[in-house]
Amino acid sequence: MQRCLLFLKPKEENQLIPTFIFMSDSKFQIKTDSGLYTDMYELAMAEAYFKQGIHNTPASFDYFFRKLPFAGGYVIFCGLGELLPVIENLHFSPGEIDWLHKNGFGKDFLEWLKAFRFKGLIRSMPEGEIAFPLEPLLQVAGSLAEVQLIETLLLNYLNFHSLIATKAARIRYAAGDRHLSEFGLRRSQALGGIAASGAAIAGGFDSTSNVYAAKRYDIKASGTMAHSFIQSHENELTAFRKFTEAHPKNSTLLVDTYDTLKSGVPNAIIIAKEMKQKGQQLQAIRLDSGDLAYLSKRSRKMLDDAGFNEVQIVVSNQLDEYLIKSLLDQKAPIDVFGVGTSLATGQPDAALDGVYKLCEIDGKPKIKLSENIQKVTLPGNKQVYRYTDEEGCFVADAIGLAKDNIPTQMIHPYDPEKSMLLNTKMATPLLHKIMENGKSLLENYEPKDVAAFSRKRLKLLPDEHKRFNNPHIYKVGISEPLHQLRNDLRREYKM
Amino acid sequence: MQRCLLFLKPKEENQLIPTFIFMSDSKFQIKTDSGLYTDMYELAMAEAYFKQGIHNTPASFDYFFRKLPFAGGYVIFCGLGELLPVIENLHFSPGEIDWLHKNGFGKDFLEWLKAFRFKGLIRSMPEGEIAFPLEPLLQVAGSLAEVQLIETLLLNYLNFHSLIATKAARIRYAAGDRHLSEFGLRRSQALGGIAASGAAIAGGFDSTSNVYAAKRYDIKASGTMAHSFIQSHENELTAFRKFTEAHPKNSTLLVDTYDTLKSGVPNAIIIAKEMKQKGQQLQAIRLDSGDLAYLSKRSRKMLDDAGFNEVQIVVSNQLDEYLIKSLLDQKAPIDVFGVGTSLATGQPDAALDGVYKLCEIDGKPKIKLSENIQKVTLPGNKQVYRYTDEEGCFVADAIGLAKDNIPTQMIHPYDPEKSMLLNTKMATPLLHKIMENGKSLLENYEPKDVAAFSRKRLKLLPDEHKRFNNPHIYKVGISEPLHQLRNDLRREYKM
Repeated sequence: MQRCLLFLKPKEENQLIPTFIFMSDSKFQIKTDSGLYTDMYELAMAEAYFKQGIHNTPASFDYFFRKLPFAGGYVIFCGLGELLPVIENLHFSPGEIDWLHKNGFGKDFLEWLKAFRFKGLIRSMPEGEIAFPLEPLLQVAGSLAEVQLIETLLLNYLNFHSLIATKAARIRYAAGDRHLSEFGLRRSQALGGIAASGAAIAGGFDSTSNVYAAKRYDIKASGTMAHSFIQSHENELTAFRKFTEAHPKNSTLLVDTYDTLKSGVPNAIIIAKEMKQKGQQLQAIRLDSGDLAYLSKRSRKMLDDAGFNEVQIVVSNQLDEYLIKSLLDQKAPIDVFGVGTSLATGQPDAALDGVYKLCEIDGKPKIKLSENIQKVTLPGNKQVYRYTDEEGCFVADAIGLAKDNIPTQMIHPYDPEKSMLLNTKMATPLLHKIMENGKSLLENYEPKDVAAFSRKRLKLLPDEHKRFNNPHIYKVGISEPLHQLRNDLRREYKM
Repeated sequence: MQRCLLFLKPKEENQLIPTFIFMSDSKFQIKTDSGLYTDMYELAMAEAYFKQGIHNTPASFDYFFRKLPFAGGYVIFCGLGELLPVIENLHFSPGEIDWLHKNGFGKDFLEWLKAFRFKGLIRSMPEGEIAFPLEPLLQVAGSLAEVQLIETLLLNYLNFHSLIATKAARIRYAAGDRHLSEFGLRRSQALGGIAASGAAIAGGFDSTSNVYAAKRYDIKASGTMAHSFIQSHENELTAFRKFTEAHPKNSTLLVDTYDTLKSGVPNAIIIAKEMKQKGQQLQAIRLDSGDLAYLSKRSRKMLDDAGFNEVQIVVSNQLDEYLIKSLLDQKAPIDVFGVGTSLATGQPDAALDGVYKLCEIDGKPKIKLSENIQKVTLPGNKQVYRYTDEEGCFVADAIGLAKDNIPTQMIHPYDPEKSMLLNTKMATPLLHKIMENGKSLLENYEPKDVAAFSRKRLKLLPDEHKRFNNPHIYKVGISEPLHQLRNDLRREYKM
């Protein structure tokens, strides 16, 4: 035992210990800072830039999305805390350079890639900010090759974290202040469940069933028992008794294995009485099937009648924001919701459509054309301003050029006949420098810090943007100079 | 350069090199063989079993699903090649044991957990097999604690790989023998895109844009250029020329940045002519927006008229099996399809509902009851038999008890009035031992090997089960003794 403690003492855990490792990649390690975590075309483009000698041309890209997920009214912008350290450390190992060589990349380019480190500048909204379609959430500036190389990584992280945090915030909105636990690992993508758990916390969840994520992000892990635990014992009562003996302080009993109201709840009450005699307290019962409104009401009454008002009711089983809202509208006396599949997979959307588009190269603003005005990008280095009312509540966002003053007026992005006057005294810029010369300027922060910020910001978003059915569309406009620049460039390319 | 080559020589890559590593986990490494990759309740149950001294009781669990994804007719069972090595190596590191101690687990249990290695037995269908609802795809037997501990990991891998391989197989069915490339990394779950790319190949795709996955699974990486590449040059023609100079053998030109038919395709033809004069050949053009049927037909004609019949047409942009089928029904002359979001996220389902249920403990068969007969589990150790016709085509599957003879008759699982006689001479058992004493009995195989097998098996599945609209339901029944056993246990529990 002494030996064990010696190895486990945290102070000694970080000391250098001489050992042997393989230079090749272990198949049991996913290296998140591998330069290969990208689409092939990023590397193909980077090599083409390199061969022309234009890889160091300064360039800027915007990250933005066009369509709100879940037919909702907002997005919680998330993923920076995970992304920035990866960008800081992104590199190509000797084995990876070798693989690229075998796959047709040239030696000169690979020499450059061996020394590659991202040295660019990133301006961004804070993690946990409320964001809307079309506005740049983040802007990357640097050499053409480096800003291109991080595209796929950046999209993969920001799209997924933002999607899940947004779903979590919607579920939080439905659940009020009840405890929310994320249960999605078994239905998430392989390894994707780790980020899903972190993003769920960032969006407002209280705990996760995912132990790996709990350790990684320092969040509360929660868990009780499966039906198999009940089935592995002589009978339900014995199973309950043995579980609470093993876990007297973490005693949630799953009551629906045989018959919730005739067997599960009565047996839980017997156990609650036994625990009471020992000075302990049964924590909760869990319902995982059947009509949760009916069963929670009946169970609550049975528990209360037996004098166990403090025993909580946990429910799970294919829940989402709509079912939780419906249960609470029916006044179901539920204390804890466990949400799995719909949260961890961001159903029904499964992906945020965030994109990464060139907006400036070599000091010249650029647009991508399209037959559809909604797909024409916004040129130049930009700033997003949020305008509030006297109480600090969000009124509108205006996208302007970074070099210009705060806009006093904004124009509808697709209908120039519509415009709106703005009070510059009530405007706050949302994009701030978060990485410079490839070094993050942010403190290390964790999902629960993001949650605290997003909760604060969500309070400032009027409720009509949060409702589930046809939420009111938040106003996002563009400044007059940006509108002009876009028109000028459209005409220029259409010549 | 010499130094570089020295490090890169594959033979020398695996040799032991003395170095220093931190004993703590790097934040840039995801350890896939971590015992913490599980739900908290698996550990809570394992400790409760341990404290009672019943953790070594023999137990068996079934992995099966209830609902076919995509409203389809079958599932491609996938994920074993990824899962088995992880189960073999699953363990708890000193740092992880320490974390569990801080989170309330007892010292005796943690001593046991420190030495934990999975020593169980797994019987399974082969990876790539065609599977149907209700039948066990895999069965795990071992000590109660160990078979419980791997539940979440197993579900996470098998559910996701099977979902994506099935989606890929559907897209392959729509695309015939055209080249299919997976483009989903930017919209997949963070890190989930790696497994998605592997599973896409297992289900019938030819290549992926995901470089990390291409190296990991030894599959073909493909990639061309983004719109930003075009925008980063003086004009489209220069961009095309510079790209083909850099990549003369991998020259797919994206033609929709400004105007597909007025600019993109004419410029691609100019480049094709220039390349021809140098003895090179333009590989393809890519369409990423607009009406792909119309544009591919017009582009094909322009290329053919200029004498470039061999230049292929690649299309992408929110494709799925339905859009691909529609394009080919319209005779769109497309050679390569790139499929991203809908494949990597398994839209519209996003998760296979596979579950892991106790079927036997201490030699006694077990069921989980439910008001709904479709949710009552099948007790005991089972075997799945596939019955074929004279041509080897699949006719029906029967689930029997492993100890019994091959069933000569099967009963509808939910309607005992329906039964079907079976010819035992045409039956093949599908579950085979793949792991014994915790050691995999399988060769290391890769997604393309799985693809070869699943392609062969899919050919034996009649087409009416493969169509997208209301596919014919494949017959899965249970043997008479299994039916009896389930009824006996239901009566026993309902007493």
